[in-house]
Amino acid sequence: MNASMNDLILESELRKDPVIGRWVIVAGGRSQRPNPFRNYSTAIKNDQPCPFCPGREAMTPPEVLVYRSQGEGPAEAAWEVRVVPNKYPALRIEGALDKKGEGLYDRMRGVGAHEVVIETAVHDSDPPRYSARQMVDVINAYRDRMTDLARDTRFRYVLVFKNHGGAAGASLEHPHSQIIALPVVPVRTENELAGAGRYFDYRGRCIYCDILAQEIADTRRLVAQNTDFVAFAPYASRFPFEVNILPRHHDAFFWMLTRHQMEGLAEILQDVLRRLKLALSDPPYNYMIHTAPPGFPHTERYHWQMEVIPKLTEVAGFEWGSGFFINPTPPEEAARHLRELERVMDVPEGHLLANPAP
Amino acid sequence: MNASMNDLILESELRKDPVIGRWVIVAGGRSQRPNPFRNYSTAIKNDQPCPFCPGREAMTPPEVLVYRSQGEGPAEAAWEVRVVPNKYPALRIEGALDKKGEGLYDRMRGVGAHEVVIETAVHDSDPPRYSARQMVDVINAYRDRMTDLARDTRFRYVLVFKNHGGAAGASLEHPHSQIIALPVVPVRTENELAGAGRYFDYRGRCIYCDILAQEIADTRRLVAQNTDFVAFAPYASRFPFEVNILPRHHDAFFWMLTRHQMEGLAEILQDVLRRLKLALSDPPYNYMIHTAPPGFPHTERYHWQMEVIPKLTEVAGFEWGSGFFINPTPPEEAARHLRELERVMDVPEGHLLANPAP
Repeated sequence: MNASMNDLILESELRKDPVIGRWVIVAGGRSQRPNPFRNYSTAIKNDQPCPFCPGREAMTPPEVLVYRSQGEGPAEAAWEVRVVPNKYPALRIEGALDKKGEGLYDRMRGVGAHEVVIETAVHDSDPPRYSARQMVDVINAYRDRMTDLARDTRFRYVLVFKNHGGAAGASLEHPHSQIIALPVVPVRTENELAGAGRYFDYRGRCIYCDILAQEIADTRRLVAQNTDFVAFAPYASRFPFEVNILPRHHDAFFWMLTRHQMEGLAEILQDVLRRLKLALSDPPYNYMIHTAPPGFPHTERYHWQMEVIPKLTEVAGFEWGSGFFINPTPPEEAARHLRELERVMDVPEGHLLANPAP
Repeated sequence: MNASMNDLILESELRKDPVIGRWVIVAGGRSQRPNPFRNYSTAIKNDQPCPFCPGREAMTPPEVLVYRSQGEGPAEAAWEVRVVPNKYPALRIEGALDKKGEGLYDRMRGVGAHEVVIETAVHDSDPPRYSARQMVDVINAYRDRMTDLARDTRFRYVLVFKNHGGAAGASLEHPHSQIIALPVVPVRTENELAGAGRYFDYRGRCIYCDILAQEIADTRRLVAQNTDFVAFAPYASRFPFEVNILPRHHDAFFWMLTRHQMEGLAEILQDVLRRLKLALSDPPYNYMIHTAPPGFPHTERYHWQMEVIPKLTEVAGFEWGSGFFINPTPPEEAARHLRELERVMDVPEGHLLANPAP
């Protein structure tokens, strides 16, 4: 997932697990690659010039999107957010999918898009320290790229995610996130659509809307709220301090966000990340956006959301092999701890819980 | 999953994700636990006396199974393998499940079993260095405990797994593996049963038997073979150097193993672990046994197997959030590299590939 891994990937293919149906991106032929048996170190290396810093724009492929500051004079051309194709993409934008079988196995060419969102020009920053406007710009960039990529009918899903810190999979320190457009719908999304669909068939309501109502009424797992969003520790959290952010307004697609909602999302996301940073001493973390696939027709059955996962524990093969998780920190405790930080945080207005729990 | 995590778990419960149906073991009330916001370090600490070493048997709960050496004199009482309840169990053996709802959520008490298999009396050893007989004893202990636990009708699944190395989730250095009896079938197993069931409905054959036949004929992903087992890198490997070990003889249940098959499994497992140790400089790894749940009636539709996963890459939130994996090392290359170690290994007879690939 990180650039050092991608060094190895030149022509990739998608392969489907024949039993459980999970697709995997597998790197291509050996001949093109330097050393497939390298040390898979995850330390972030800082001895190279940062390719994401201003003045080194030529080190990345040409940008597909850029937001510039509105200032005057020499600052006129300065960028605030850049989106560029990944120099070492896991998937290639060119060509047809070329689906075929190989005995009982299924494969297709690694067609897709892999882009990097350079979130700020400031090398030594992170989302909790962005200005509110900067965070809105980052979310706007996600939205703009997702809508653009969703127009390509070869792509069945567009994933937006961020790896912060080496242990969470980041390979460069400069704040960035990633966008991957896939020719298949990921199995996790399929499972969510199926589960939410079954609930809708049975109850005639969106399961996420019901979860939201229950969490707001219960209060024990709430982390933060504002006009448009609610952040809470999910009832069946797999990991300590996992946080979900759900929009109050039902929408299946992330890209339906209004400008006002974008501001609300920026605010609550910064708030959540600031709390996690304080509570857990700047932990590595990942966040990702869950949205319905482009063209998904049953929009009443799915509700987009964001998931934030601090990386605190090593995941053992037990979890990989079973899909079963042991979480040592009950979400009620994690939420209480994150809520209590209210008192020590320099919290801008609007971050305060509307309904603080007892 | 490791003992340091389990320090925190006193009274746990099982909670079900309301959308995707995944069960999670969540730790219990805060009052009983010292510090839920501790540093989740995964380093193995060696400054304490090892509770798994001979002479310190009183540091563990009383054993539920022990194999002793057949020697004479003072060595008569020496143990070769001990199985003890986990001192800090994720699940408790006592009581009823007490299933209930909580609004739209489902939960039950954390009833189950959590045992530790102390694989050898030798602190500073690991499976590649065990005698063949020692490895057979370990597998026999897995089998004996699984059959015993499967008799408890509250338990729907028994998981056997090993975490080797701190990065793979181990918290003690002394070689050990773990057994967890669960009151629910893990989602991964459900997915395997469903996928293999669909294939059987369509083709009338076991999908794993077909995979075995294709892998043997193809040869590119083979790692090792013997009379009863085949080890290969799976076609859609999620991780570099992932290896599956399948019995040639179709059985749904691991515990159907004959003594001869146990010897074959011990041999091929040691062989695979030795190759991984050589190829990847003693990497952290996990292995686990996949078997049909006790009482599963459609035995022609499932085929037990072992999965070995070296821990080489950090797993990013991308993978957690999507179920989508990027594997930088094609399984064909991983398998070739593991096969080629044949030449440099001190390979006992029977480890040699029957069908070496070109």
